[in-house]
Amino acid sequence: MASLGDICLAAIINILSAFGFFIAFALLRLQPVNDRVYFPKWYLKGIRTNPGRSGNVVTKFVNCDLRTYLRFLSWMPAALNMPEPELIHHAGLDSAVYVRIYLLGLKLFVPLTVLTFVVLLPVNWTGGALDRINNLTFNDIDKLSISNIAPGSNRFWAHIVITYAFTFWTFHVLHKEYKNIASTRLCYLASETRRPDQFTVLVRNVPPDPDESVSEHVEHFFSVNHREHYLTHQVVYNANALAKLVDKRKGLQNWLVYYENKFTRNPSKRPTCKTGLFGISGTRVDAIDYYTAKIEELRNEEALETEKIMTDPKEIIPAAFVSFKSRWGAAVCAQTQQSSNPTLWLTEWAPEPRDIHWQNLSVPFVEITIRRCIMTVALFFLTFFFMIPIAFVQSLANIEGIQKVAPFLKPIMEAPVVKSFIQGFLPGIALKLFLIILPSILMTMSKIEGYTSLSALDRKSAAKYYIFVFVNVFLGSIITGTAFEQLEKFLHQSTTEIPKTIGVSIPMKATFFITYVMVDGWAGIAAEILRLKPLVVFHLKNAFLVKTEKDREEAMDPGSLEFATSEPRIQLYFLLGLVYSVVTPILLPFIVVFFGLSYVVFRHQIINVYNQQYESGAAFWPDVQRRLITAIIVSQLLLMGLLSTKKASHSTPLLLALPVLTIWFHIYCKNRFEPAFVKFPLQDAMVKDTLEQATEPNLNLRAYLQDAYIHPVFQKDKVENPVAIDQEETSPLVRTKRTSQRNTPAESKHGSDAGSEIDF
Amino acid sequence: MASLGDICLAAIINILSAFGFFIAFALLRLQPVNDRVYFPKWYLKGIRTNPGRSGNVVTKFVNCDLRTYLRFLSWMPAALNMPEPELIHHAGLDSAVYVRIYLLGLKLFVPLTVLTFVVLLPVNWTGGALDRINNLTFNDIDKLSISNIAPGSNRFWAHIVITYAFTFWTFHVLHKEYKNIASTRLCYLASETRRPDQFTVLVRNVPPDPDESVSEHVEHFFSVNHREHYLTHQVVYNANALAKLVDKRKGLQNWLVYYENKFTRNPSKRPTCKTGLFGISGTRVDAIDYYTAKIEELRNEEALETEKIMTDPKEIIPAAFVSFKSRWGAAVCAQTQQSSNPTLWLTEWAPEPRDIHWQNLSVPFVEITIRRCIMTVALFFLTFFFMIPIAFVQSLANIEGIQKVAPFLKPIMEAPVVKSFIQGFLPGIALKLFLIILPSILMTMSKIEGYTSLSALDRKSAAKYYIFVFVNVFLGSIITGTAFEQLEKFLHQSTTEIPKTIGVSIPMKATFFITYVMVDGWAGIAAEILRLKPLVVFHLKNAFLVKTEKDREEAMDPGSLEFATSEPRIQLYFLLGLVYSVVTPILLPFIVVFFGLSYVVFRHQIINVYNQQYESGAAFWPDVQRRLITAIIVSQLLLMGLLSTKKASHSTPLLLALPVLTIWFHIYCKNRFEPAFVKFPLQDAMVKDTLEQATEPNLNLRAYLQDAYIHPVFQKDKVENPVAIDQEETSPLVRTKRTSQRNTPAESKHGSDAGSEIDF
Repeated sequence: MASLGDICLAAIINILSAFGFFIAFALLRLQPVNDRVYFPKWYLKGIRTNPGRSGNVVTKFVNCDLRTYLRFLSWMPAALNMPEPELIHHAGLDSAVYVRIYLLGLKLFVPLTVLTFVVLLPVNWTGGALDRINNLTFNDIDKLSISNIAPGSNRFWAHIVITYAFTFWTFHVLHKEYKNIASTRLCYLASETRRPDQFTVLVRNVPPDPDESVSEHVEHFFSVNHREHYLTHQVVYNANALAKLVDKRKGLQNWLVYYENKFTRNPSKRPTCKTGLFGISGTRVDAIDYYTAKIEELRNEEALETEKIMTDPKEIIPAAFVSFKSRWGAAVCAQTQQSSNPTLWLTEWAPEPRDIHWQNLSVPFVEITIRRCIMTVALFFLTFFFMIPIAFVQSLANIEGIQKVAPFLKPIMEAPVVKSFIQGFLPGIALKLFLIILPSILMTMSKIEGYTSLSALDRKSAAKYYIFVFVNVFLGSIITGTAFEQLEKFLHQSTTEIPKTIGVSIPMKATFFITYVMVDGWAGIAAEILRLKPLVVFHLKNAFLVKTEKDREEAMDPGSLEFATSEPRIQLYFLLGLVYSVVTPILLPFIVVFFGLSYVVFRHQIINVYNQQYESGAAFWPDVQRRLITAIIVSQLLLMGLLSTKKASHSTPLLLALPVLTIWFHIYCKNRFEPAFVKFPLQDAMVKDTLEQATEPNLNLRAYLQDAYIHPVFQKDKVENPVAIDQEETSPLVRTKRTSQRNTPAESKHGSDAGSEIDF
Repeated sequence: MASLGDICLAAIINILSAFGFFIAFALLRLQPVNDRVYFPKWYLKGIRTNPGRSGNVVTKFVNCDLRTYLRFLSWMPAALNMPEPELIHHAGLDSAVYVRIYLLGLKLFVPLTVLTFVVLLPVNWTGGALDRINNLTFNDIDKLSISNIAPGSNRFWAHIVITYAFTFWTFHVLHKEYKNIASTRLCYLASETRRPDQFTVLVRNVPPDPDESVSEHVEHFFSVNHREHYLTHQVVYNANALAKLVDKRKGLQNWLVYYENKFTRNPSKRPTCKTGLFGISGTRVDAIDYYTAKIEELRNEEALETEKIMTDPKEIIPAAFVSFKSRWGAAVCAQTQQSSNPTLWLTEWAPEPRDIHWQNLSVPFVEITIRRCIMTVALFFLTFFFMIPIAFVQSLANIEGIQKVAPFLKPIMEAPVVKSFIQGFLPGIALKLFLIILPSILMTMSKIEGYTSLSALDRKSAAKYYIFVFVNVFLGSIITGTAFEQLEKFLHQSTTEIPKTIGVSIPMKATFFITYVMVDGWAGIAAEILRLKPLVVFHLKNAFLVKTEKDREEAMDPGSLEFATSEPRIQLYFLLGLVYSVVTPILLPFIVVFFGLSYVVFRHQIINVYNQQYESGAAFWPDVQRRLITAIIVSQLLLMGLLSTKKASHSTPLLLALPVLTIWFHIYCKNRFEPAFVKFPLQDAMVKDTLEQATEPNLNLRAYLQDAYIHPVFQKDKVENPVAIDQEETSPLVRTKRTSQRNTPAESKHGSDAGSEIDF
């Protein structure tokens, strides 16, 4: 076990490495050549264009203004300066609420850290139980933890009181936060400008009708049953084949532009290319003619496919986007049951057009229940038995295994370098590879489950990832052995024994988790802001692959908040903080630093970098809340287990009340706030409708909604400019600042007030 | 342990006692004097009036037509003859679906009995494991059970295959039944004539408004947010005090009628009474004058109270019944969220007026969540610790205890009769008393939880009672010790150990449960039809208390299906059948007889006796289904536990798939059918609206709905004739038969066809 000194050393190393990342970031982001890596969001918004076109070659790539280097941490206050409403407007509610999770961590753990440091650390330190035991190795960390208190001591009362105080503090903070976010969401939805999804309902499982097409059937059904409200509808075409053709043509078009540019720059020689694989083999032809012909060919194919989709009724999916004359009508339709068979005519509020996962719109109801059942079982096996295939791969990936499969490699493998690499790295790589592809596996599982929006897919993947992290990282680190061994152990243990087994091990693992927090948390977050991978990829692409301006746009990878993987990781820190708050309070400052650092970094990232694919209006918050509640209950049960082994069994009934209270609190919050995230109040819809009727009495809503929900491949050019961005560009808040700030990144910085959103 | 012979003897005794009850019933029900006990439903419907008015005194009380005695079991085919649609029309959907639970038991267990008798009994009988063990006592029942199969035998495959076959058979039957009942419910709701609740929504938690009264606030809110659909509303008054006054006046009015009758019969002497306690003490006054004055006084008080309720805004509860112009409008309002705060303006489809539990309409949202939390904890303690207060009472109720409390009783208690009574009966009586008042306790708990309709109260009480029966009767009989001891044992046992502990004891308890089924099931059901308590009470009342014709009406206690207690009891039989189906198949015929007998008896009772207080349209079926699924999963887990102790551990993975499948089946059924019980399809509402508009274009709906949801005390005379009965009287089906059958009960019986509903 590491001593306090070891921990301090590790902390210094990690702080230094974090600082290293920050300095590197500060230097790199000031170079104009990296501008598209560190400020892609402003490019996408059209507020920034290529830097330094007017300057000389050097200033185009390197920032020579030395003054700017002095204030290399200035991005931190800048990131914090943007007020919340502006942040929501700039980055969307999803992102703004996401960073609030880190803020919630601070709100929760800062007072708790102070409290435990003032009360529990002295109590533990003077407990003196470890001083009496001399034959055991212990260190300063242990002396600060609950381990230093003798069994049966009255000092445990302090821990129980603190637990109670902390539980109520958590309730207070969570309740306030949930309330805040629910009302922010409602405000956000209410203040939004007109959007197609406000008027539209996604209808699935349209029953087949022998006499009518899907489109007619939908129209008749809704004209009858929503007589006064139905406006129009859009059927969904099965356009997967067409989408592939379009993608292919776009690739060819880029090549065409590239060769055309080449020809313009050097008109003496028409560019040529080879027709074979990767342009290496095959006959040499005139490139511009070749690609023009190819594109023409694909255009014809596309036309044929489009023709087929439009005429063949089989290409129409039994789902439709039904639009209503008013938001009220849509709200009513989305919340009610249409037919007496609840598996037909399923209605739900349509996700915004960007957010739709088109492939899943046609899965029938029964199939969905079967798929979900299978995926639940699969998740169970994935969580508890994932070590089995990996162990199998690892057993193959040793020297004997490889030699058996490929005897001809034997001479190479005898080399000591190769040998040590295989022995040292291969087994680890199998596990690492699995962990890297795990989010994709979970996302695929969620897709199989048949969710129809990207936001739902992200949420469901996050839930799966949380289970995996909880079992394999949290429990797996506390208790030795694989998840499956743990499971078997638990199954053969009594129900009261399980919290004891885990609870007893908790104080012993404190130092491990402190190190984990520093490496994964501190340094990981600092690495996040450096964006090393996008930086390298961007410059590689820029050097070798960028042929057109459009390619440069695409090489710029803004990325997005990876909700499906990052949220469960935050939850792990919450869990650690909650579990160790009473047991080993010394862990808390590390968690606090993590939350503080992450808050600043991610606030900077969502302002300057990330470009969200969709906007769900913080629909994920109920999931966050539920997992936090789970963490609280787990921490309470483990504390109960730990104390019952400390001969403080008088505490059990007292502590037993806490999970009951927590569950009640959860049910209360769920009833009180969750409807704001899944339902749509008619009152709000009516207010917006009335307002709109008064301000725009002649609005042609039908024309507005006509093409809103068309499969992206039919939208042609619209794809590149999602609706929300269009709207933001026309909003006065951003527009007023464009003139002053375009092309003057260095000068305009440190604008202290509202201008901070482009400050860097 | 009882042998097969003992069981046969017990069976014969129970069959004889059941037959005894049936013969007694056959004799008693033919006597005109008992007519109101055995056919109250027909009196309430107005189809039957007092029998034998035209005959002589003897035939008025005793049936002298000997032929009728020959066919003393004729009520059985008569009860079965009424076709289901007519039964629904006659007794309501609740009752008709309730007896279908027994039919479901037959459908489930008859094929299973055949299958297990053909396959499992021979397999068990020839297992021979018990023959080899000579030092253990065993009997024929055990030889027919799974105990007779040696550990690790391949014969267990038969049990596993049967379990699978049976699980799928259960799924099939349950699915068919759920589907059937869901569509019956929808048909029933669709075919109903116009009823106020179709147009009405119950709104609770109306927020206080400083400028408006509740009524104005409701009107404004709904005129704005349901502009085209809102029609009218009725506020709810806090009329509990007034209800008490009205009850008091009604009692006095009965006395007045009684004295007036007395005076009419004997005009020479004005009747007198005493004004004191129970008419014994006090001054003697003229009775008619006295009661007239008293009633007048109460009328004034009522008027004052009514005045106060109508004028004082504090007497208006923040809840209202809001009516809409169409069923569509009501369906929309009931299913949608009104305000952005989901705890305000809570809407739900209004229960029918008879079904409302008026006291709970005003409980605020936060209070409800707190109450439910407390009641959940209370139910836990009631279930597991109910023995503690009873043991305390029992400890007081011994001779020493009583002597200590009341030393003056000492001489009496020395008498041997008193002594043996105290020692032998008092402790048992404490437990028995608790079990008798248990349903009332559970109902009170449900009332505290704040449900607003009687049907919901019944359903929630049934759920609580089921938990109690499951823990204390089922588990309590299998495992020795009190529920609390079991709980403690389970908590200290491993998760896999629990099904083993219970599973192992199961075969040993088969004979106990066979006896239980016979005593509680067979004889209990036969006693139910005899209606001994109502019979005695009716004749006692008739002899001593009946003063007026109205009193006679009230003395006739038709009773109703006690859903809250009887449904959990049926579930116990399902549980026993499912658990023992594979383990000890010999138990199944007993269960089958129970279901068959109950089906006939309860079908007879709902046709001729019971008068339901409300009609919920079989809203309880999802609960029945859920408890059946629970029973299936319990049976599967216990079989798994049992087999794992039989060294048949290869079976565990095979059996583990079953609970997963069952849970999936449950989720599927829940999604597929439950909405039919909680939601209201817009399509159906629209069809009915359109039809009504076509047939009755000039309907004055406002007048129709004006007084529908008025607190019973304001309805004056309407109370005695609920709406549904009014409607049934005007329906042609019943009316055509009234002329021929009135006053001719003896002659008209054995009408073989559709007339069977009044056959007896």
